[in-house]
Amino acid sequence: MAELRRDPVVGRWVIVNTDDSLHPPDFEKEEHVFRQADVCQFCYGRERHTPPEVDVIRPSNTPANTAGWSVRVIPNKFPALRIEGELNKRGLGIFDISNGVGAHEVVIETPEHFKKFADLSEAEMLNVIKKYQSRFISLSGDRRFKYIMIFKNYGESAGASMEHAHSQIIALPMVPKYVLEELEGAQQYFNFRGRCIFCDIIYQEYQDQDRIITENTDFIAFCPFVPRFPFECWILPRKHTSQFGSLNEEEQHHLANLLREVLSRIKISLSDPSYNFYIHLAPVNQGNPGSYHWHIEIVPNLTRVAGFEWGTGFYIVRTAPHVAAKYLREAKI
Amino acid sequence: MAELRRDPVVGRWVIVNTDDSLHPPDFEKEEHVFRQADVCQFCYGRERHTPPEVDVIRPSNTPANTAGWSVRVIPNKFPALRIEGELNKRGLGIFDISNGVGAHEVVIETPEHFKKFADLSEAEMLNVIKKYQSRFISLSGDRRFKYIMIFKNYGESAGASMEHAHSQIIALPMVPKYVLEELEGAQQYFNFRGRCIFCDIIYQEYQDQDRIITENTDFIAFCPFVPRFPFECWILPRKHTSQFGSLNEEEQHHLANLLREVLSRIKISLSDPSYNFYIHLAPVNQGNPGSYHWHIEIVPNLTRVAGFEWGTGFYIVRTAPHVAAKYLREAKI
Repeated sequence: MAELRRDPVVGRWVIVNTDDSLHPPDFEKEEHVFRQADVCQFCYGRERHTPPEVDVIRPSNTPANTAGWSVRVIPNKFPALRIEGELNKRGLGIFDISNGVGAHEVVIETPEHFKKFADLSEAEMLNVIKKYQSRFISLSGDRRFKYIMIFKNYGESAGASMEHAHSQIIALPMVPKYVLEELEGAQQYFNFRGRCIFCDIIYQEYQDQDRIITENTDFIAFCPFVPRFPFECWILPRKHTSQFGSLNEEEQHHLANLLREVLSRIKISLSDPSYNFYIHLAPVNQGNPGSYHWHIEIVPNLTRVAGFEWGTGFYIVRTAPHVAAKYLREAKI
Repeated sequence: MAELRRDPVVGRWVIVNTDDSLHPPDFEKEEHVFRQADVCQFCYGRERHTPPEVDVIRPSNTPANTAGWSVRVIPNKFPALRIEGELNKRGLGIFDISNGVGAHEVVIETPEHFKKFADLSEAEMLNVIKKYQSRFISLSGDRRFKYIMIFKNYGESAGASMEHAHSQIIALPMVPKYVLEELEGAQQYFNFRGRCIFCDIIYQEYQDQDRIITENTDFIAFCPFVPRFPFECWILPRKHTSQFGSLNEEEQHHLANLLREVLSRIKISLSDPSYNFYIHLAPVNQGNPGSYHWHIEIVPNLTRVAGFEWGTGFYIVRTAPHVAAKYLREAKI
């Protein structure tokens, strides 16, 4: 039986299979083959083949752009947007255009070519989170940028073109549509109820219990009641905050641990599927939207998006989130 | 060089490569292998294995649910939504839910298992358009439904699970998000300017010329200035109308011809890619949104959608629409 569910933040309806869910063995498996090791520019010793690093964690006795680093951030060699120039917004007949100004960076998460992100150690994952934060703070300093999007594509079917573990950061000169919708939904709810909608969702998750995957002092992970994809997972700070830049050392630790744990649970439950994750943060350089609550959304790539979804924005989700959460909770990690 | 472009209807920004576009040979090719012919329930002689037909074009001397038909419409055996029951909208804590009431039908476009939709004859394509229209009218008669979505998935990577040529119709008890956004955008523009925004887009296309693919008396096809995907194509009625149900015989003809021509041009230019198309129609059973202008959007499946797109609603389009239109216009059909 299918149930129609409405996302309380953005108003999107989805169709969820509530009692004949697809289970992990029902999804096609994807093999992750390593083919690029011999020529990989993200490996030790090939640092000179990439643009010079803009941020890095490395021992102080190693020179920039040489081996020895643990996490390395470089500009993307084929950027979607260019760092130089002014925005120059203008009309063109009925249309609005602007120069493609922005930043596009790559976070190389480990020097080890064959190591998967979900298999990083606690210390390695912490380093990645630290670099997400330091790049966020640094890019926010450029007044041309209004939004910093941190995201990861793992696996070919999820859009990764390089197999060496990496994530990406794109700084945009405008707030993207989906984030704008969440901001507006959160603000409307706040105006109406005087509370954060994401805090209320967390409260509801604690009431219902069956969609929670795991938690620690600072963060909670659950399968949202209104997902777009089967086995979609969200990670939120348990206490209300719109600020990512001010995470302290302990919170960074807790975030790294929870992200690592959820990705391991996904890897084990679903036989190492391709996935995307992205961090929904508040915009930068245009005041603090205090009603927002930043979070991470993880979407395993298990099904194909087709005409119905592209045409409607409705999604057909064939695994109920409480079923997905049970698998993830019970995975032996 | 990349350019940021804003969709004038829904406000979505996209990043378009304007002078280093990807060309047809740059996209991965997909083979379409026929594997299901021996067991295909959409073929002649296997009519009894599908749910009974709800609409059909067949000679009057052939009994229902036997061979002899040219286009056949059946309920989907595995429907996303069920036809029985009432909507029963209700709250569940912070969430809104409703029963999964709707209709899900399959239009079998030809009895020939090995015939591709783009290769239908003019007469066959006309029959399909006629059935789209008659099902739209029939399903609109059910007051529980607010939206009728007609769409097609061609090819495995575009989500087709049956290889025999077919499209699908889903009747929904609420207007989907993307359509709502278009309706609101069109209404706001109408309030502001007293004109239809889609008519103004068509006017702009005639001014600019270089994104037009083809046209006839009643319809125009072009690659939109702000696409989500490379080689995205739109087909619109040239004269303003929000009404799909009232297409006359001549207009049906012209629509069938143009759809057939555009799909042939896509097939030839891009080596028969998988694609989706969907028809954006006005909602039903809730007044006539006169400011809307119905249309078809065709999206070839050439690239992978990844974390950036899922997280932002921004799209990175690596073929400029005027470049795509030139290939499509010049294809030898």
